[in-house]
Amino acid sequence: MSDTTSNQMWGGRFAAGPDAIMEAINASIGFDKRLAAQDIAGSRAHAAMLGATGIVEASDVEAIRKGLLTVLSEIESGDFAFSAALEDIHMNVEARLKEVIGAPAGRLHTGRSRNDQVATDFRLWVRDQLDAAETGLLALMRALVGQAESGADWVMPGFTHLQTAQPVTWGHHMMAYVEMFARDLSRVRDARARMNESPLGAAALAGTSFPVDRQMTAEALGFDRPMANSLDAVSDRDFALEFLGCASICAMHLSRFAEELVIWSSAQFRFVTLSDRFSTGSSIMPQKKNPDAAELIRAKVGRIFGANVALMMVMKGLPLAYSKDMQEDKEQVFDAADNLMLALAAMEGMVRDMTANRPALEAAAASGFSTATDLADWLVRVLDLPFREAHHVTGSLVALAEKQGCDLPDLTLEQMQGVHNGITGDVFDVLGVHNSVASRTSYGGTSPERVREQVARWKENLG
Amino acid sequence: MSDTTSNQMWGGRFAAGPDAIMEAINASIGFDKRLAAQDIAGSRAHAAMLGATGIVEASDVEAIRKGLLTVLSEIESGDFAFSAALEDIHMNVEARLKEVIGAPAGRLHTGRSRNDQVATDFRLWVRDQLDAAETGLLALMRALVGQAESGADWVMPGFTHLQTAQPVTWGHHMMAYVEMFARDLSRVRDARARMNESPLGAAALAGTSFPVDRQMTAEALGFDRPMANSLDAVSDRDFALEFLGCASICAMHLSRFAEELVIWSSAQFRFVTLSDRFSTGSSIMPQKKNPDAAELIRAKVGRIFGANVALMMVMKGLPLAYSKDMQEDKEQVFDAADNLMLALAAMEGMVRDMTANRPALEAAAASGFSTATDLADWLVRVLDLPFREAHHVTGSLVALAEKQGCDLPDLTLEQMQGVHNGITGDVFDVLGVHNSVASRTSYGGTSPERVREQVARWKENLG
Amino acid sequence: MSDTTSNQMWGGRFAAGPDAIMEAINASIGFDKRLAAQDIAGSRAHAAMLGATGIVEASDVEAIRKGLLTVLSEIESGDFAFSAALEDIHMNVEARLKEVIGAPAGRLHTGRSRNDQVATDFRLWVRDQLDAAETGLLALMRALVGQAESGADWVMPGFTHLQTAQPVTWGHHMMAYVEMFARDLSRVRDARARMNESPLGAAALAGTSFPVDRQMTAEALGFDRPMANSLDAVSDRDFALEFLGCASICAMHLSRFAEELVIWSSAQFRFVTLSDRFSTGSSIMPQKKNPDAAELIRAKVGRIFGANVALMMVMKGLPLAYSKDMQEDKEQVFDAADNLMLALAAMEGMVRDMTANRPALEAAAASGFSTATDLADWLVRVLDLPFREAHHVTGSLVALAEKQGCDLPDLTLEQMQGVHNGITGDVFDVLGVHNSVASRTSYGGTSPERVREQVARWKENLG
Amino acid sequence: MSDTTSNQMWGGRFAAGPDAIMEAINASIGFDKRLAAQDIAGSRAHAAMLGATGIVEASDVEAIRKGLLTVLSEIESGDFAFSAALEDIHMNVEARLKEVIGAPAGRLHTGRSRNDQVATDFRLWVRDQLDAAETGLLALMRALVGQAESGADWVMPGFTHLQTAQPVTWGHHMMAYVEMFARDLSRVRDARARMNESPLGAAALAGTSFPVDRQMTAEALGFDRPMANSLDAVSDRDFALEFLGCASICAMHLSRFAEELVIWSSAQFRFVTLSDRFSTGSSIMPQKKNPDAAELIRAKVGRIFGANVALMMVMKGLPLAYSKDMQEDKEQVFDAADNLMLALAAMEGMVRDMTANRPALEAAAASGFSTATDLADWLVRVLDLPFREAHHVTGSLVALAEKQGCDLPDLTLEQMQGVHNGITGDVFDVLGVHNSVASRTSYGGTSPERVREQVARWKENLG
Repeated sequence: MSDTTSNQMWGGRFAAGPDAIMEAINASIGFDKRLAAQDIAGSRAHAAMLGATGIVEASDVEAIRKGLLTVLSEIESGDFAFSAALEDIHMNVEARLKEVIGAPAGRLHTGRSRNDQVATDFRLWVRDQLDAAETGLLALMRALVGQAESGADWVMPGFTHLQTAQPVTWGHHMMAYVEMFARDLSRVRDARARMNESPLGAAALAGTSFPVDRQMTAEALGFDRPMANSLDAVSDRDFALEFLGCASICAMHLSRFAEELVIWSSAQFRFVTLSDRFSTGSSIMPQKKNPDAAELIRAKVGRIFGANVALMMVMKGLPLAYSKDMQEDKEQVFDAADNLMLALAAMEGMVRDMTANRPALEAAAASGFSTATDLADWLVRVLDLPFREAHHVTGSLVALAEKQGCDLPDLTLEQMQGVHNGITGDVFDVLGVHNSVASRTSYGGTSPERVREQVARWKENLG
Repeated sequence: MSDTTSNQMWGGRFAAGPDAIMEAINASIGFDKRLAAQDIAGSRAHAAMLGATGIVEASDVEAIRKGLLTVLSEIESGDFAFSAALEDIHMNVEARLKEVIGAPAGRLHTGRSRNDQVATDFRLWVRDQLDAAETGLLALMRALVGQAESGADWVMPGFTHLQTAQPVTWGHHMMAYVEMFARDLSRVRDARARMNESPLGAAALAGTSFPVDRQMTAEALGFDRPMANSLDAVSDRDFALEFLGCASICAMHLSRFAEELVIWSSAQFRFVTLSDRFSTGSSIMPQKKNPDAAELIRAKVGRIFGANVALMMVMKGLPLAYSKDMQEDKEQVFDAADNLMLALAAMEGMVRDMTANRPALEAAAASGFSTATDLADWLVRVLDLPFREAHHVTGSLVALAEKQGCDLPDLTLEQMQGVHNGITGDVFDVLGVHNSVASRTSYGGTSPERVREQVARWKENLG
Repeated sequence: MSDTTSNQMWGGRFAAGPDAIMEAINASIGFDKRLAAQDIAGSRAHAAMLGATGIVEASDVEAIRKGLLTVLSEIESGDFAFSAALEDIHMNVEARLKEVIGAPAGRLHTGRSRNDQVATDFRLWVRDQLDAAETGLLALMRALVGQAESGADWVMPGFTHLQTAQPVTWGHHMMAYVEMFARDLSRVRDARARMNESPLGAAALAGTSFPVDRQMTAEALGFDRPMANSLDAVSDRDFALEFLGCASICAMHLSRFAEELVIWSSAQFRFVTLSDRFSTGSSIMPQKKNPDAAELIRAKVGRIFGANVALMMVMKGLPLAYSKDMQEDKEQVFDAADNLMLALAAMEGMVRDMTANRPALEAAAASGFSTATDLADWLVRVLDLPFREAHHVTGSLVALAEKQGCDLPDLTLEQMQGVHNGITGDVFDVLGVHNSVASRTSYGGTSPERVREQVARWKENLG
Repeated sequence: MSDTTSNQMWGGRFAAGPDAIMEAINASIGFDKRLAAQDIAGSRAHAAMLGATGIVEASDVEAIRKGLLTVLSEIESGDFAFSAALEDIHMNVEARLKEVIGAPAGRLHTGRSRNDQVATDFRLWVRDQLDAAETGLLALMRALVGQAESGADWVMPGFTHLQTAQPVTWGHHMMAYVEMFARDLSRVRDARARMNESPLGAAALAGTSFPVDRQMTAEALGFDRPMANSLDAVSDRDFALEFLGCASICAMHLSRFAEELVIWSSAQFRFVTLSDRFSTGSSIMPQKKNPDAAELIRAKVGRIFGANVALMMVMKGLPLAYSKDMQEDKEQVFDAADNLMLALAAMEGMVRDMTANRPALEAAAASGFSTATDLADWLVRVLDLPFREAHHVTGSLVALAEKQGCDLPDLTLEQMQGVHNGITGDVFDVLGVHNSVASRTSYGGTSPERVREQVARWKENLG
């Protein structure tokens, strides 16, 4: 007999019968309980408004608002018994409220419906994630600026095609990522401003005939305004999609940096040493240090963008207003948000802890005639050669150096003049990696002085 | 003060410190414990082979194999205390085995590594899912064949562009989905045959110097053969991607049928009545029945294909052999598999329970001059008109009927002959929806006799 | 012998030899010639700056700028012979410039490289698309507002789960899409503001030692500022990804509306009639009108979001700075932009041309006890019943009406009082679909007065 | 005045007017002309069947079949004037046929419709691509086997996490990709077998009342059988999706190998030298060789999988039978197929041309105590230490070697015995990279003898 694993779980599932299958596919309490705090905040704001407008009596409102706090504390302390039969977080909270305060609980749902309630709760949750992303991005940017400040003048190879192209500075490379994450931050802030509108009061889809004050609930929940169309308010998931879009591009930036860290940690590069905390070792090969955290971060873009694809596909072609398909929105966003925050935190930790290997960086920067472009530019600038001719002369000099088995700064002036007799001793000022980076003083360039300006700008900016 | 929700969880997370962050991103025990049965089956097979080849003594092997069953029963009974510090299911099981049987536990890992172990476990798990998908597909196909048999001659509109094109039979429409799910089944079987190879014995990546018998462990685990290249064995995740690809196309088929059920359940169509079990009602509008299960099934294609995108993106550009990125494979496949099986089961239940509304179907089939094509074909077949001329005559007759406010069968022979004098009374045999569907006797056509042939073929095939 | 098609093209391709294969995979002129106008605008701005800073003599600059206009006119008139051997648009333009003006052409490339040049060109192109999307969105919004204004008080069913839920107004439904497209517009504008920075002067990746004035070229090209980090400037494709993200969400909105139009055009719904211009007919069934344009628009979200996936996957894990992988950016964005603009234009045309079928809309709105919620709300508001009790009473009345085979407004007062004796004749004021929609006066609600306010707001806003 | 580019094209487009917009979105001739050969093959087979069954007279059939060859030769020679007004390839061909042969052309469309016609044409086209993919895969596999045969015993580092783990052989690494591409081949063959069914004769969607012989046309076109359900026949695009799925996984394999080639070509690795034909150089840095082809191949997975996403999204939720959305299928498949074939051909060329740098590979393999696992295995195998204890001893020896600044084989026997006194001189047989790889003789292992066995197996298999 073979050791194959049994299939009983699935057999069991299919044998479960229609009721169990329907409960399994339909109930959302397994995941939407994460909205508990938002649900209760929304209900408390709604209740306060029902009181202020006279729709519900003040004493009932008081009981409801107090009772909701009791329910919240039960949930936060872990004492709350969630019920799958009650389907979702909204019914779980309302049912418990009724147990706690009795009849007045029945007044809470006046002038709203589950459609605007869930839209409000989820929007509040996503808004929190946008704020958390901001916090995470700022922390990571500060860590990168810290690395950039330390190494504003450390030279390293600038790559194109993973081939050494020109020397750059460590600080400049770190600041490139600051720019990327700054764009992420800017996107996150734009998304937050755009989504910060209240669906509450849209009711099922048509608005309500109760004299609700949507402005009041919006303000109470920190929204900038109520949404202007009730059909749209309950049908819209743009805020979730835009969050996933921002998260995906941010995760793509993280994947690029993670890829560099993996490559830089290889025995062949040895550009950086990651801390033990963000690596895993081998009991048998003590020198081995696997960049596990970097690899996992590199992978997260798949997961986060996969969630984006999932929700886009769910929303494709859905007629207005609410369709049950939209219940598939939450798990995707929950998972993407958790993983984005984790990846940001892990990357921040790695950046703070990592150590650049300056000798290896400098040696690599100097290899491969990396200052050939500097030489060509000198020929244009000083000897006024046309650009394309300067390229030709430089090519000849590199070929000569290669033949001699030396680098460009090792050629003698005579050897250089043999290729072009206008060359003077001043040329040596631009050869060598430190001269090269120092010369790139155009705005946004790699010279230490430009890098320090950017560091200063960002330090002020990041507070 | 506003009722905004607090952000403390995230603030807390970022303040958690590097060690907590690393554990959170690195540990897999939270999800890979689902591989427990597969892990123990793999270890038992490996141990048996170590004994048979004399690599480990028989008494130790005996102790290991027995101890592993003890661990399995602890896990199945829920008594097992999983430890996040032990990172994954493999270390959790091995550590517990050591507690249970002592020193011999240390012999188990001889000649294998975690890389081939996890590849084996996950492959066994995915193989179970392919089997579960087969079970689910067969059940759904049987339900569809049942509907087709009942309604082999019920007429309904065949749509193109959601416009009535020609009458078809209910049975024919049901059998179209049988064909789709049959292709899914065929894909699932091909995928199973392709992936049913054993990675065990590939060790870390290079194979092993122990005289292991990979054929023996492969057989014990129900694999057809050991994988032929150890680097590939630990780097390959094609089996997971192919499962996700099969699942995605299957989910797309489900989404198409679900869309039809949603549209057919609308007050405007009323083609079907779904059972209460797979609908949700409204306490206020008792006649209202929302097709929640159909909508949720329609949405699942997003989630399942999102998982496919996620894993494709993770694997993109990964150098050989194992990289930690690949740890992101399991949660995607777990979630996609769970949702596929659930969607198949829910669709099967809905199909078994649903009731076609024959009068509504027939009335809709007859509207819109849906037998105009039959008339044109008659003109070609009987009067030998060229196809394009027959089209022209038919257009004139339809225009005439429209002007008269009647349908084609309601025109008199004289009226018809006024348009083309060759028309005879026989023409009325092809007009009317029942005549129309009866005439479509080409292989694979919609006529009841053809549908019954297909039903018979599939009933035999499905057992 | 069979009629199978031959495979000679592919056989030929594989036999083409390495040089042909490399040219086929490497050359970009086949598609990047669409950047010609941007390339020449960028070069002219760069040349002007080289002159203003004294890097190149004024007479050479003059010749270059004039020569570039000559090249542009050749391209625009179709007289330009593009060469695949010259690989890309940049080399094609420069080579032709040299033929036209001779030696001074060699000065143009001073202080820049192909990396910042292509980044500048592509950014200018994408910026044009953001502007085109704005134009298209505004036109579509105006068309929707026009429909809304006409039908501010036409009643139609508001659906959830494609089941009639409550009556809404045609104008309200149209305005829901105005809100969606307004968010798209807002995203497009944010994206434009974020991406409107100049990469020019970043050179290959490190900046340049020439005293270039990046501010000057930025201004000349309409950019708000130069990018602050040269490595980032040549590595960044966020602007393309963000365009694709905006386009995808917009296309999803279009797919939802298109789905509604397809369903609404069915014989079963007959809610709208699309114009002949945006439908296709059948020569044989003159009454048939296929909503082809709506279907094609519905499909475009796949194509546009597919491009987003493609570019995200290309960028995943790319180390800095430029890698050739990034050449895959353009075709995706070109195709997505073309299809977005086309879909917006086609949707605008369809919306302008379509005719609502008011009787069908109103009849559908009144079916299915669609004002049951209004009755329940009246019980709460007037009789002060708790919400959940009001639901129960309403359910009983609906059941009674169903049994009588009539609608709610057709019940007598006595029948109603039999269920709850507090009910008064005033209740009839909220029954009936016109009363229902008129009562939904909460901000953003469906009442004609609220819809007209929103129409007025948007008419002012849209100019 | 600024140098900004004009937006006139888009302005023009929006101003184009409804008719131009509809033609732009609706016509497919711009791309479906690639189906010309398939369309004509399908029509010739259909005509032959119409003759054989007596539906159309033999003389007309003769004229049609001959006339279609005339049209084909006009298309192949480039003399055919495609007309956008005729919308698609099918109408273009039929219209020209009528010009060529007159009246009999009107008989061709008897018993079929455009729906089954386009399904047949596209299926034939995709089948050709599956064959082309087979050809491309086989060529690439042969190239890899060639590399493997040459380097069956060259040692190189086996990486996990891009960290040196254990020595492997070059041949083993090459053969890992042979296994991957063999799975791709197997998938392609399964897909071909599954899709090789004929839709022809399904007509619009319901079958036909003409006595067509679907078996005959299926055979004439090389199909295995006619499809069994006419609704499915015109609605199915699984064959396109499965092609895209196969192509995507294959492209993912290509991306992994391409990533390795890019990394291996870096100055830091120098594991391989790519030929000039598949690299691009720099006029200024003659030693620089950019792996452009490898980078472009790495990127293709994005484009190909993007097409898969696009078509999945298009098909999501489409009701039966044909909807115009499905017209979006072709461009995605055309583009994916072209790029897959190109990537396969380019990779084959690169593999044939590339040169392994044996000294660099061997030096890298020997670094990092890469044979520590061999030592641990020896302790288990020879001294019978439990696996975990052997790990501990090995760790101590590695630490000792690291302290001495030497590698494991450089330790003296006395030094080793100081750590564990059971160690004998035989231990040196397993240290050193050549001994290490030679010892991995388990099936599928990296030892040269195992690699040569696999090479022999594949050479026979590949013919």
